[in-house]
Amino acid sequence: MKAQGLIQVYTGNGKGKTTAALGVALRILGHGGRVGVVQFFKYPVKSKAMDREGAFRALEKFAGRFRVWSFGGGFTWRVAREENAKAVQKAWKQCRKLLKDPKYNLVIFDEIHIALRYKFLKASDVIKALRRKRYGQHVILTGRGAPQAIIRLADLVTEMKCIKHPFHRGILAQSGVEF
Amino acid sequence: MKAQGLIQVYTGNGKGKTTAALGVALRILGHGGRVGVVQFFKYPVKSKAMDREGAFRALEKFAGRFRVWSFGGGFTWRVAREENAKAVQKAWKQCRKLLKDPKYNLVIFDEIHIALRYKFLKASDVIKALRRKRYGQHVILTGRGAPQAIIRLADLVTEMKCIKHPFHRGILAQSGVEF
Repeated sequence: MKAQGLIQVYTGNGKGKTTAALGVALRILGHGGRVGVVQFFKYPVKSKAMDREGAFRALEKFAGRFRVWSFGGGFTWRVAREENAKAVQKAWKQCRKLLKDPKYNLVIFDEIHIALRYKFLKASDVIKALRRKRYGQHVILTGRGAPQAIIRLADLVTEMKCIKHPFHRGILAQSGVEF
Repeated sequence: MKAQGLIQVYTGNGKGKTTAALGVALRILGHGGRVGVVQFFKYPVKSKAMDREGAFRALEKFAGRFRVWSFGGGFTWRVAREENAKAVQKAWKQCRKLLKDPKYNLVIFDEIHIALRYKFLKASDVIKALRRKRYGQHVILTGRGAPQAIIRLADLVTEMKCIKHPFHRGILAQSGVEF
């Protein structure tokens, strides 16, 4: 039996959503598969960007089997809503392309829930595209505040809940570890 | 200012604890650092073992900067308690070694909470060792049911909460994606 491929959601206010998605990517890569990532709202914050880039840089080792498409200069109110909207449309176009591409065993739509939350994208459009995803392909959606309709559709949903955070203790941001 | 290094805990009944730890490992590796993993109760379940191995195999790309020590044939009641106890002692010895080794920027004690939960290890001993950890070293502890004393000590605690699980829908285990 060929596996049908799961739709997975990582949501919640805790650390580890994108990180867990990249961990799953590692597994697929370890099995010889191919992974595509679409980043919505690439983060502008220095420490965070540097950190994420650490992980993405590391995955470049799998040249040709791991590919990232990034759209937008980060989600910030300083960026005009129109600019964000444009970047989201481009990102979403890339997502739909990947959903149809038989070469990709896993596709990750990083921070897509933010695009949904701020109404740059309609949940119904995302759901329609996910329902038509290729048999055998895994899809991961990340970001806080996953809409209920997406949760209903998904096969596996994990909420990352922040129980304790170093900011509570006044520890400064540290390179190489995101929070 | 040199970063002091964080103690991080991933716990809860949801997917993504070890996966998130491996994601952090990727980040450290991407920054040129070195990572050591001690696996308590290496899993015997076929699909799970295969899957984990996918990720670990992928990280072999970073030969010399990523190393794994595995102890025990998996946590199962079929294995005698004495055998588990012995394996845990060996694993814990390796953990203490890594906590003193200046070469390792990140050490991961995978499933150590299970060893604590079943009293193969004392939380007070683990805490004593963590308090003396090298300045600058990051430590990640994973597994369900992290003891309160460990949570109090940790700088960052994330609970992975299972909101929805494919078993609920009767989907069979799929290679390459753990649940």
